[in-house]
Parts: sequence; C-alpha cells; structure tokens
Amino acid sequence: MTDEVKLYHGNGGVMSHQLIKDVFVSRFSCDRYVSVDSAILTVDADQIAYTTDSYVVSPIFFNGGDIGKIAVCGTINDLAVSGAKPLFLSCGFIIEEGFPLSSLEKIAQSMADTAKECGVQIVTGDTKVVPRGCADQLFINTSGIGAVIAKSDAVLGAGDKVIVTGTIGDHGTSILLSRENLFEDSDIKSDCAPLSRMLNDLSMQMGAEIVLMKDPTRGGVATTLNEIIGNTGLGIELDEGTIPVATAVNAVCTMLGLDPLYLANEGKALVVVKQGYEAQALHILTQYECGKDSCVIGTVTEAFKGNVVSKTKTGTHRIIEMLYQDQLPRIC
Amino acid sequence: MTDEVKLYHGNGGVMSHQLIKDVFVSRFSCDRYVSVDSAILTVDADQIAYTTDSYVVSPIFFNGGDIGKIAVCGTINDLAVSGAKPLFLSCGFIIEEGFPLSSLEKIAQSMADTAKECGVQIVTGDTKVVPRGCADQLFINTSGIGAVIAKSDAVLGAGDKVIVTGTIGDHGTSILLSRENLFEDSDIKSDCAPLSRMLNDLSMQMGAEIVLMKDPTRGGVATTLNEIIGNTGLGIELDEGTIPVATAVNAVCTMLGLDPLYLANEGKALVVVKQGYEAQALHILTQYECGKDSCVIGTVTEAFKGNVVSKTKTGTHRIIEMLYQDQLPRIC
Repeated sequence: MTDEVKLYHGNGGVMSHQLIKDVFVSRFSCDRYVSVDSAILTVDADQIAYTTDSYVVSPIFFNGGDIGKIAVCGTINDLAVSGAKPLFLSCGFIIEEGFPLSSLEKIAQSMADTAKECGVQIVTGDTKVVPRGCADQLFINTSGIGAVIAKSDAVLGAGDKVIVTGTIGDHGTSILLSRENLFEDSDIKSDCAPLSRMLNDLSMQMGAEIVLMKDPTRGGVATTLNEIIGNTGLGIELDEGTIPVATAVNAVCTMLGLDPLYLANEGKALVVVKQGYEAQALHILTQYECGKDSCVIGTVTEAFKGNVVSKTKTGTHRIIEMLYQDQLPRIC
Repeated sequence: MTDEVKLYHGNGGVMSHQLIKDVFVSRFSCDRYVSVDSAILTVDADQIAYTTDSYVVSPIFFNGGDIGKIAVCGTINDLAVSGAKPLFLSCGFIIEEGFPLSSLEKIAQSMADTAKECGVQIVTGDTKVVPRGCADQLFINTSGIGAVIAKSDAVLGAGDKVIVTGTIGDHGTSILLSRENLFEDSDIKSDCAPLSRMLNDLSMQMGAEIVLMKDPTRGGVATTLNEIIGNTGLGIELDEGTIPVATAVNAVCTMLGLDPLYLANEGKALVVVKQGYEAQALHILTQYECGKDSCVIGTVTEAFKGNVVSKTKTGTHRIIEMLYQDQLPRIC
C-alpha cells in the first residue's frame, strides 16, 4: 500500500473499509466502530453531558502533541469541566488527498493512547477524503458523551475564588513557535493533556462548593473569565503577580509583545470555588502532575461590575477584555 | 456586518460569540448551545445509539438540498436505521475565510428546519474558521444521540427479504449533474430526507421481524448489500427488474455509463425482514411520502455464498461487488 491517502479511501467502498480497519479499528480496539451505523451504548447515569469540537490546528504535529491528542483531550476536558466523567467519543476525519498514511497512523495512535489513559472508548467514526487543495492536510472532529457525576447549585457570588490549574499560555506559544520556526531550541511545549481524572476527583470530593469550571482554550484565560462574568453584574479582580507563566513563555511573550492571558491553553482549567474552600481545592488539584502548579489568581467581586480587571504589580488596575481580533488562527 | 466570514469569527472571542449567537443559536433555539462546554441532557432509555458523520459535499447547494440538510438527515438516518429515535445532535463547522455569511445563514436555517421536522434538538456545536485555500467553502460534522426503541434478536438467514424504500441513485445523479452543469432542465433532484418518523414507526410496529436496516449512502445499494452479507456465508439475489430507478436517473445513467446500484442515496433505507413479513413492512412504509415506492428487490439465499448477485432481465446472474474506485468524490 502506498504511503498516501487516496480519494478512493473516502468513497465508502472496499478501500474505505480497509483504511478504517487498518488505521482506526485496530487501534481503537472497538468492533462497534466499523460497518455499523451507530454504536449502541449503555449509560448508567441520570444525566449525560454532550459536547463537540472540530480541530484544525496547524501545524498538525507540534512540541507536546499532535492534532489527534488535542482532539481527544479537548473533548474529554469539555466533559470534565462540566462535572461529567467522559465515557464515549466519536471522531470524524476529513483528510486531504495525498496525506501520508504513516502520519495518519501516528495520529490515530496518539488518539488511542490518550483515550485509553482516561478510560474512554472511541466508539464511532467517519472518514472523508477531499481532493488536493480542498483541505489543509487533516481536520478532526470529536464529540463526546459523559456521565454527570456532580451537580452544584452554587451560584457565582462576590468572594468566590478563581483558581487556575497551572501555567498559562504554553499551548499558544508552542504553536506560534512551531509555525514560525522560532526559538527551536527552547523547552516550550504545549500543555495539551486530559484533565478528567483530576477534575472528576475534584467534582466527586467537593461538588457542592465548586461554582463552575471552564477550560481556557481559544481566547485564553482573559476570554474565558469574561464568559464567566457574562451578564452576572459581578466583576473578577485578578492579582497579576500570582498568575503562573513559565519563564520561557514569559520571555517569548515579552519579546513578541504577546499577553499570556490571551494565549490558548489545552491542559488547564479555571475552577471557581466558594470562598473558604480554595485550600481544599488546591490540596486535591496539586496532587496531580497536571495540576501541580495550581493556585488562586483572583476573586469575584461586586466592584468592577461586568469587567475582568487585573491588579498590576504597581497596584493599578487594567481592564482585561474578551479577545477581539488576534493574529493566530488555527490554534486548535 | 460585511457578508463574509472572517478569521476572527473563529478565534473564540467577541466576534465568535456574535456569529454563534446570530447565525446558530437564534435558529437552533437552544440556550444550551453557547458559552457552555457541554449540553446537560436527560435520556430516558436503557440504551442509546451514538453516531457521527462529516459532510464535505460539493457543491454545497444542489437540487433537493444543501450541505446543512444532508448533515442533519445523514445523522438522523444513521440513528433511525439502528432502531433508535433521534433526540440530540451536535454540529461542528469548519468554514473557509471569506465564505458568505448569507449562505451560512441559509444552511443553518436548513439544519434547523430539518431537525425541527424530526423533533430533534441541536444542543451543542463548534465553529472554526481557516484561512482561504485551507478548506473548500464549508465542512460540517454532525454527531447524534438517539434512544433505542427496538431491538431485534433476528439473525440474517436464507429466505429473508430485502426491501428498498424507494428509487435509487437520485442523490448521486443530482450531485453529478449539479457539479458538471449537465441537463440543467432535468427534474432530477437529491432524495435527501430524514427517515426517522417512517423507520421509527416500522421499528415500533415490527421490531422483532426486522433483521436489520441500513442506509445506502456512499457506495450505494451495491456496497451496502455487500456490507450486510459480510462474513455471514450467505448471499443476496437481487431481481434487477424490481429495483426502482426514476426514468430520468435511468436515462442519465445509460448515457454516462453509470450503474445506479453504486450511486449514493440520502433518503433511502434498505430493510431486511424475515420471510412472510414483507407485506406488513411494505404496508407501513408505503404510508409515508418518503417510502411510497418501497418494494422488495431481493432475497437472502444460501446460494451465491458471500456474494450479492443480480438476476438480469435475460435470466443470467451478474456479481455485484462492493464499490472499489469511483470518479465521484465528495458526494456527501
């Protein structure tokens, strides 16, 4: 078999079946995946969480991951921040004719490994191939179903504490450097990681005290905090000095004039807890490798209504708006 | 607002939120769709069916439908042939920069209308925008969750009857003609339609006697029948004279040397029932507009082991193999 995906791999016939069997089913170890129109599943939960994301990241291989890993982590994390235990994933591939089969295999393996690490099954999928020039290499959609394990009646209120589960801006910076071939000897790599074990643990132990969780991907922490504020009439005051940024990421941001608050993360969560419960949350989060740098970065407040503000090191406040326009498309 | 999708519509920030609100949420009438990481749903069923498909059809508007309608119908039909009542859909959009906003609105409307017609909710979604030349206009992924309403223990066996729910090859022919600007005054249009009401009715009324159902999309009836035979060691004998093909489709196929058995359908199902139950199935199917031309086209047999064969009008048999290579990519 030549090392290229051909148009006939997407026509639903003999060669489609062969590709799906060789590349996907063999790795996803799931006999439900092929030749059936739907996976039939049993979900033992009163409520399910359901989410989807398409991934168009460029480059498709980057320091710290690849488009397959990000496609699985992203959907798993969306379920986990919703208080759900991820159970099942679907995946849809749109492949440009001529894409190397060996790269597709590497990406499928990375998806399989990440799913397995989280005890998640990839149960249904689809493969399309488009002519050269009609797509850029490979796009992946994943959707996911999780069992809701924790629900909180807590409502966002003044005094609530905002926790971030580690350094910010690693993914955005890594993609930028990979794309521009800058600082190739730096140790900056994407934080792309599944957070479900850590966040599910947190949900189980302190469900009632968690106000909400969100993963600050596209648009970064700044945009996600503005989404959290929304129309609540409250504000969030960040303490700029407490926001963890890796030294190398900080150096790149300073040199290129970027604000890490707007850079994408793929292995971090923002967790808002009721005042007084931040120590307990940090105790749980910091037991996990992916949460070892967790810390409180801000407080929900009645001041600064409708705004996210950051108290700078000099004691002044700057308004942190939602991302408007950026120069970094295809970050995930 | 200019009539073009810009890169910033995909960055997760202010303009992304605006686009999602204006184009999608307003039509899908679902407040769960925006600003939350997952939709939280209650499914009242012992088992669920779960499926996904990506849609890359070209052209995106064709006689009988558009990429939005096909994306909703395709996933609804995959759930329905699995004996499930479709409940919830996700949708992921990958949009090429510069795509007309007015076209996106038209497509979103078509998705909303089709979902509503079937009592299905679009509950979660994602929007990415890629630079010009990195995608061809618009790709849509849908996934879907359904409640399993009928399970059959029936196993494929000699004597089982194969029913098709109407004329074959309409979709494939329509796309071919749209793409090549051929026979523009013909009345050939895609059969793209949701089959869930009809097939759910069939499942409820005769669950135990239905051996299986499948929708013959890419690769056509020929490929789907070969999938059905698989490794069962049985054969299927079609009676070529009974296979319904619209007169105009037949004329185009004759002229262009195409075999309708290999052309895609987007609003048809193959239903295999136990011998003696075909009349009851036809009675139910023909009550629906989308099933009015339903008929028996073949029989499962111990002869022709592993093969689908067609008895021609002259009484000879030809083997109908699974599609190998075709010249019509991006049919759905």
